[in-house]
Amino acid sequence: MHVIVQKYGGTSVADPDRIRGVAQRLVEMHREGYAMVAVISAMAGVTDNLLNLARAVSAKPTLRELDLLLATGENAATALVAMAVNALGIRAISLTGAEAGILTDRTHTKAKIANISPRQIHNLLDEDYIVVVAGFQGQNPEGEITTLGRGGSDLTAIALAGALNADACQIFTDVDGVFTCDPRVVLDAQKLHEVAYDELLEMAGSGSKVMQSRAVEFAKKFGVEFEVRSSFKTDPGTIAKEETANMEDVVIRGISVERNQAKVTVDDVRDEPGVASRIFSVIARGNIIVDMIVQSVSKHGTTDISFTIHENDLEAATQLLDPVIKEVRAAGLICTSGVAKLSVVGIGMRSHSGVAARLFDCLGQGGINIQLISTSEIKIAVIIDGKDADRAAQLTHQEFGLSRFAPVEPVAGEE
Amino acid sequence: MHVIVQKYGGTSVADPDRIRGVAQRLVEMHREGYAMVAVISAMAGVTDNLLNLARAVSAKPTLRELDLLLATGENAATALVAMAVNALGIRAISLTGAEAGILTDRTHTKAKIANISPRQIHNLLDEDYIVVVAGFQGQNPEGEITTLGRGGSDLTAIALAGALNADACQIFTDVDGVFTCDPRVVLDAQKLHEVAYDELLEMAGSGSKVMQSRAVEFAKKFGVEFEVRSSFKTDPGTIAKEETANMEDVVIRGISVERNQAKVTVDDVRDEPGVASRIFSVIARGNIIVDMIVQSVSKHGTTDISFTIHENDLEAATQLLDPVIKEVRAAGLICTSGVAKLSVVGIGMRSHSGVAARLFDCLGQGGINIQLISTSEIKIAVIIDGKDADRAAQLTHQEFGLSRFAPVEPVAGEE
Repeated sequence: MHVIVQKYGGTSVADPDRIRGVAQRLVEMHREGYAMVAVISAMAGVTDNLLNLARAVSAKPTLRELDLLLATGENAATALVAMAVNALGIRAISLTGAEAGILTDRTHTKAKIANISPRQIHNLLDEDYIVVVAGFQGQNPEGEITTLGRGGSDLTAIALAGALNADACQIFTDVDGVFTCDPRVVLDAQKLHEVAYDELLEMAGSGSKVMQSRAVEFAKKFGVEFEVRSSFKTDPGTIAKEETANMEDVVIRGISVERNQAKVTVDDVRDEPGVASRIFSVIARGNIIVDMIVQSVSKHGTTDISFTIHENDLEAATQLLDPVIKEVRAAGLICTSGVAKLSVVGIGMRSHSGVAARLFDCLGQGGINIQLISTSEIKIAVIIDGKDADRAAQLTHQEFGLSRFAPVEPVAGEE
Repeated sequence: MHVIVQKYGGTSVADPDRIRGVAQRLVEMHREGYAMVAVISAMAGVTDNLLNLARAVSAKPTLRELDLLLATGENAATALVAMAVNALGIRAISLTGAEAGILTDRTHTKAKIANISPRQIHNLLDEDYIVVVAGFQGQNPEGEITTLGRGGSDLTAIALAGALNADACQIFTDVDGVFTCDPRVVLDAQKLHEVAYDELLEMAGSGSKVMQSRAVEFAKKFGVEFEVRSSFKTDPGTIAKEETANMEDVVIRGISVERNQAKVTVDDVRDEPGVASRIFSVIARGNIIVDMIVQSVSKHGTTDISFTIHENDLEAATQLLDPVIKEVRAAGLICTSGVAKLSVVGIGMRSHSGVAARLFDCLGQGGINIQLISTSEIKIAVIIDGKDADRAAQLTHQEFGLSRFAPVEPVAGEE
C-alpha cells in the first residue's frame, strides 16, 4: 500500500468550490491506487475571525479556551472535505487531531507533538477510507485539545507522514513551490526542483513565507521528505529533503528579502559580562522577537551591540531599553527603521569560498550600503536600506546565476 | 454547595457584547456563592451557516461528519464564554460535551444521552471554577463526537442538572417564559409562573416554540425542575415541574396555535385491517411528519381517514398517496391547505368535566367551523380555517379565564 499524505492550506479550502476541488484531487489519487491521508487547515479567514471574537470578549484570552476555539476552524473544514469526498462516492472519514492519535505536551496554543499513534489511521486506510485529519491540533495527556501554533497544519502533515512511513508528503498551498527569490521582486525567479532542509530553514527564518521553521525542523529531524506545491495546478512543486552531494554544486539556492525591519544599536556600552544578557532579557520580557544580533569589536573597554527587530516593535523596544541604557552606562540608543534584510542561502557555501566577498562586491558595485552583516554556515544576511531591497535582490539573483535572463530594467514611468 | 445549571441559547450569545453579558451574569451568581455550570449553544446563525456549507459540498452530508461540523458551533461559543468570564477575574473552564462526561448512543445527529459522568465537573466546581459546557453534543462509545438533535442544548442542561443534582436549572432564551398563548396573537396573554411537564409537552407538540419535547420528556423522566426565562431581563420566568395537586385547579393552562397545516382525507376507504398501515407507512417513508390522525366511524364497510401535516409537505404527500388510493380502492383524496390547529392544554381537564363542550360552544358562538377534533387526556385540539386562528385563540383565551381583560377588538383599518 502506497500511502500519500497531502496537506491543504486555508486558501485551498476557502469556499465550497475549492473544497470540492480538494475532494476531487483526493478521489483521483485514490482511484490510482494510493492510500490517501489529507490534513486540512481552517478555511481562509476563519482563524482570524475566531481570534477577533476572542479579542472582543477578552483582552487576554486564556490559552486553553483559545485552543478549543481555534480548533473549531480545522474541525469544520475537515468535516466538509470528508463530506465532499463521500459525495463523490468514495468513503472518507474525518478525524480530529486527537482521533488521529496526535498526542502533544501541555503547552496550549503552541504545543509540541509528543507522540503519534497511527493505528486508527492505519485501520481506516486498510478499510479503504480516505482519511481526512484536522491539522494544527492534538490532545494533551489530560485529553484536552491543544493547538500546534503557526505552521501547525504543515507540522501535522509531516509528522503523520513520518509516523505512517508515507511514500510521499505533499504540502498544497497557494504558491507553486519554493523559488530562488520572491517572483514579485525578481521577475525571472525560478521554481526550485529541490531544496535541502537546512536551506529551507534559513529561508523560513529570512522572510520566505512558504513554510514555518518548526515544520521543516521536524521534517529534518525525522527525515521526512515533502513537496511544496500549488493546490490550483497539477505541476510538480519543490521537494524538500536531506542534502545530497550534488546539491552542493549550487552555491546559492535562494535569496530572501525581509522588509519593515528596524535596527537598534546600543552605543558605546561597557564590554563587561552580563551587559548583553541585561539588554536582551528586557527585550524578551516584552515578547519582542530579535532577529540578527551583532556585537562589534571592543575598543577602549567599550563596544556597540546592534540587533534587528520588526519595525512595529521599535517603540516598545526603545521604551523597554531606556532605563537599561542608564543602568549599563551606554552612550545611547541609535534606532533606524525602514531597513530590510537580504539573505543569500545555500549549502554550497560550505564548499565554495569567496561567496561573502562576491555578495559585498555585487552590492558595492550597485551603490548599496551594507549596515550590518551576520552569517551562518549556509547563509549570509545583510541589513540594507529598505528602498534598496528590490534592486539588491535583483542584482544578487543575477550575480549568483539564479536568473535565466538579464535583470529586467524598470520601464520609465512605471513604479 | 448550591449548584445552578444555566443554559444560554444562540440569541443569548449572538455577539461579543451578549457573550460578555452572559459572563457578567455567571460571575454575579458565582459571587453570591453559587457553584455555576453554564451550557452554551452556538452563536445565532452559526449552525445555519455550517449547514449551508455542508449542503454546498454534498447533497447528502454523511452524518458522522455533520456532527463534527455542527459541534464546532457550540465549541466556539463555549470557549468564548469561558474567556469572557476569565476576563472578569473569575476562573472559568470550557468543556466539550465529551469532556463534561456526556456519553451517548451511536446515532449521529440525533444521539440519545446514555450516561453522564459528572466527576470532572464536580472536581472543577470544587476548585471554584465556573464550568462552561458546550451544549448539544456528547461522545459515543467509540469516542466520536455526536450531537443531540433539535433542542439538544436544553437537553444537555437538563441532563447535567439531573446528574449533578443541581439546585436549579435555568433555560435562558429570547422569550420571558411560557405564556398562556402567543402574546402576538392574544395581547393580554399571561406569563405562567409554573407549568406541569405534561402541559409543556402538549404545548411543545402544538406549535409552542419555547421548548423541544425531548428536553421536557427528559426532565419529566428524571424529575428535573427547570425555569424558562429571558436572558435579557432579570425577571423570573416559568418553572416547569411535576404537577402538584393545586395545579389542577386551573382548567386550561394555555392555548397554542399552529398555522400552515394541511388536512388530508382519504375518502371512503374500505374499513379493513392494514389499510391505515398502508397509508401511513407510505407517508413515513417520505419523512413527512403526521400530526393529528382521525378515523371516522365505519358505515357500510367504508370509513374516512383524515390526518394533518405541514402544508409544505402536502404536494409530496399527495404524490406518495396517489398509487395507494387505487390500491386500497378509496374514493379519492380530499386535501385542504391553509388550515390551523388550535390546542387548549391543561391537566385540570382531567378533573373538570365539560371542557370540550365549552370549547366547541365558544367557537360555535364565534361562527368558527371545526373541521377535525382530536383529544388527549390533557389537550383538546381542533382544526379550523387558518383565517379564523387568531380570533379563535382570543375567544378561547377569554372563555377559559386566561385573559385579565376583555378581548381586544381589532381597530378598524388595522389588519
